[in-house]
Amino acid sequence: MSVHWQQAPIDDRGLAFGDGCFETLRLHEGRAPFWAQHKQRLLTGLQRLNIKACPHTLEHILAEAISISASGVLKIIVTRGAGGRGYNGLHLQQPNYYPRVFPFQPMSPELYSQGLVVGESRIRLGKQPFLAGIKHLNRLEQVLARHEAVANGWDETLLRNQEGQPVELTAMNLFLRYDQGWWTSALESAGVNGIARQWVINQSGVKVRVSEQAPDSVDHIIEAFACNSIMGILPLRALGQWQGEVGAQTLSLQQQWNNLWHDKKCI
Amino acid sequence: MSVHWQQAPIDDRGLAFGDGCFETLRLHEGRAPFWAQHKQRLLTGLQRLNIKACPHTLEHILAEAISISASGVLKIIVTRGAGGRGYNGLHLQQPNYYPRVFPFQPMSPELYSQGLVVGESRIRLGKQPFLAGIKHLNRLEQVLARHEAVANGWDETLLRNQEGQPVELTAMNLFLRYDQGWWTSALESAGVNGIARQWVINQSGVKVRVSEQAPDSVDHIIEAFACNSIMGILPLRALGQWQGEVGAQTLSLQQQWNNLWHDKKCI
Repeated sequence: MSVHWQQAPIDDRGLAFGDGCFETLRLHEGRAPFWAQHKQRLLTGLQRLNIKACPHTLEHILAEAISISASGVLKIIVTRGAGGRGYNGLHLQQPNYYPRVFPFQPMSPELYSQGLVVGESRIRLGKQPFLAGIKHLNRLEQVLARHEAVANGWDETLLRNQEGQPVELTAMNLFLRYDQGWWTSALESAGVNGIARQWVINQSGVKVRVSEQAPDSVDHIIEAFACNSIMGILPLRALGQWQGEVGAQTLSLQQQWNNLWHDKKCI
Repeated sequence: MSVHWQQAPIDDRGLAFGDGCFETLRLHEGRAPFWAQHKQRLLTGLQRLNIKACPHTLEHILAEAISISASGVLKIIVTRGAGGRGYNGLHLQQPNYYPRVFPFQPMSPELYSQGLVVGESRIRLGKQPFLAGIKHLNRLEQVLARHEAVANGWDETLLRNQEGQPVELTAMNLFLRYDQGWWTSALESAGVNGIARQWVINQSGVKVRVSEQAPDSVDHIIEAFACNSIMGILPLRALGQWQGEVGAQTLSLQQQWNNLWHDKKCI
């Protein structure tokens, strides 16, 4: 079992090629409420890359992380392993696991009540159905888009696809409400299928249309929010040229999400 | 100076996001003949990512590598550095350098004389002008395409762009000769601007048309070769559905390249 808490071998293929996947999940009072979903997405992503990870090793990492910090954030990187110089890694049979534990730091309270300002990236996400949806380690598009947010003073950055359709923010999925109802991207050619996104679609009771193409332009948005499983539900008050009010449906959903973490039966 | 020959810090952003660039270059009898070009491409790529690398550190690494092995292959990974958990890395000011030295292992002699069999990838390279041309660490497309080669018994894999135009092989640039003359991809939306490619275009004396769109379909190729600065010039005998003879112009160019390594004045 190659679990590394401190250092990585210099020939790890994660470092060389971004050849692996990762998860970032919240630990809360000795539990990891969405663990089953995170584990499933991680194994699905690794399978897409033909990396055979061990579910028992992941369980072992979770137990050790909780023993380090009952509440906090666990990040797990899993790579194809170490060895070789070229792109072929099919001969490698021992993935490497890199867990780290951080304190949980939500965004500032004002952002939860007053909303994020999200700017438009100059970057359009490359179309890659073979990698879409999974949380792989090739994240330069997100890094560059995040730098745009910092440089411009935005809270987050909107990434569109090559056709100009909204896909996601750098680290959050995006939900938009139009006259026709709620919509989020299907993520068929780019983007990460977030755990909070899956909860909103499948468990929150909110009806969401999931498709590649938004029903309308951002000008006609009624309300909007972004989400991920660490930060929860964040309303938007600006998305590119659109500016709007924090929506009541968003705040209700935010409350529903927050309640999950205080009611052990819910998850 | 953060040069690491053995281990990487677990929080290096190369491992986390593929946030950096790399070079692989041939050392030959105490020299690195294309060093200036490799160094320039590396610095250009890092600048594109807003990573401030130190040219003196790179020189120091080269000298140390040559002292380890006068002939061989030097691989240098440069990342944005270590620290943080999120995508923003603009606050990081100290890149990490990961050099490794390998023996030089050319392909088998038959491939140089009889040519490579190159199959067609199912994967089409994502369009990303912000990353095109540079040798960054987000290489999952190349890893997956290389696995196709291994699974199918090909020597290499052809990667096309979203429009179906040939771009490159997983680790080599591609040159095709038609009735209209030699052509290679302009790499404006995807692909790596290889050092051997630059030599062919600018220094070999061969006239090459460089554009996004090939003059014709692969059916009408007269001769074809692939190249990189480690392996040199390799003729193709199959490229997807095209099959053809090893070309005289290719073999002449191959000889010209090989001579570079035996004549110290040439480079």
